[in-house]
Amino acid sequence: MASLQRSVNVGGEITSFVGGDRGNWQIEAMTTIIGGALDTSTHLDMISDGTQPVGTDHVWVLQGVPSYHRYVNRREHDLLTAGKPALGRPEATCAALIPIKKSESWWALPQDERRAILEEQSQHIQIGLRYVPAVARRLYHCHDLGGPFDFLTWFEYAPQHRGLFNELTQRLRDSQEWHYVEREVDIRLVRR
Amino acid sequence: MASLQRSVNVGGEITSFVGGDRGNWQIEAMTTIIGGALDTSTHLDMISDGTQPVGTDHVWVLQGVPSYHRYVNRREHDLLTAGKPALGRPEATCAALIPIKKSESWWALPQDERRAILEEQSQHIQIGLRYVPAVARRLYHCHDLGGPFDFLTWFEYAPQHRGLFNELTQRLRDSQEWHYVEREVDIRLVRR
Repeated sequence: MASLQRSVNVGGEITSFVGGDRGNWQIEAMTTIIGGALDTSTHLDMISDGTQPVGTDHVWVLQGVPSYHRYVNRREHDLLTAGKPALGRPEATCAALIPIKKSESWWALPQDERRAILEEQSQHIQIGLRYVPAVARRLYHCHDLGGPFDFLTWFEYAPQHRGLFNELTQRLRDSQEWHYVEREVDIRLVRR
Repeated sequence: MASLQRSVNVGGEITSFVGGDRGNWQIEAMTTIIGGALDTSTHLDMISDGTQPVGTDHVWVLQGVPSYHRYVNRREHDLLTAGKPALGRPEATCAALIPIKKSESWWALPQDERRAILEEQSQHIQIGLRYVPAVARRLYHCHDLGGPFDFLTWFEYAPQHRGLFNELTQRLRDSQEWHYVEREVDIRLVRR
């Protein structure tokens, strides 16, 4: 599930995160960090087979696609690939879904300046690597899909690593890069 | 129409290029450069208002979104912005739509290696700048949308610049970057 093949060149393999009153994951908390809230729901279902959620019994649907790396260099790419923990580990019964939207001023920057803010100033990639293998992570892109967010990041970890995960999210939120985040919701979940 | 605002942060503003028997552009030639052909059609319509083409009287629909820059640095960004010719110039009665798809091996490369191939080895950005202002260009991204191509590039130029435009496309096709192109169709058009 976490092989390199799945993480590249899979444009169009849409994953839907469906908030509602059923699903494999129970929502423990939804915290609006900045910008507009998402409506409250009790459960989350993840649909990765490309089908669309049907009916009207969901509260919201967020969609994204795994895609190619936008910022990592060869060294970081190899470190990320070597250390990448799988999703679906039996002990990783906690998860988080964190949708974010960045500002127009972020997207108007050229590539080299976005990279410099993300890594040289904010150590985004380095920080993520420090919490491997405790925290497994998968990034879904949605900027080009036109929804309300630019990225949906999914994290999985064991209950004893809740504190570590809180530390990870706090470090990122304290970074220069986060000045460009204009909407962020932090959804914490446990496997049913 | 060619302002900076339109070229950034417009995820979801889908443009549809519709091949069929009607539209504002008449198709003069469709050449399959590599990979599968597109079915023959006589006209092309461009729908940029976000609506979807309806009915079954079209032969194909290719969709993409203007998006943020993936490779340009600040210097290139400023050169591109300063010299960017507008679309829709009255004298630019010739156009080309060139959809391309790149290989899995391209998308599996880290960002720094893709950038090095695209610009340091292939001078993609520099070559494009040499044909400004004769050739106006707009790039639509579709990798994350899951269609048959990764990019749709739209070009407009005056009839006396046909030769220049052929030179531009040939230079790019001769570059290292083009080794990663596995599907390309070259559609030439004239305004009706």
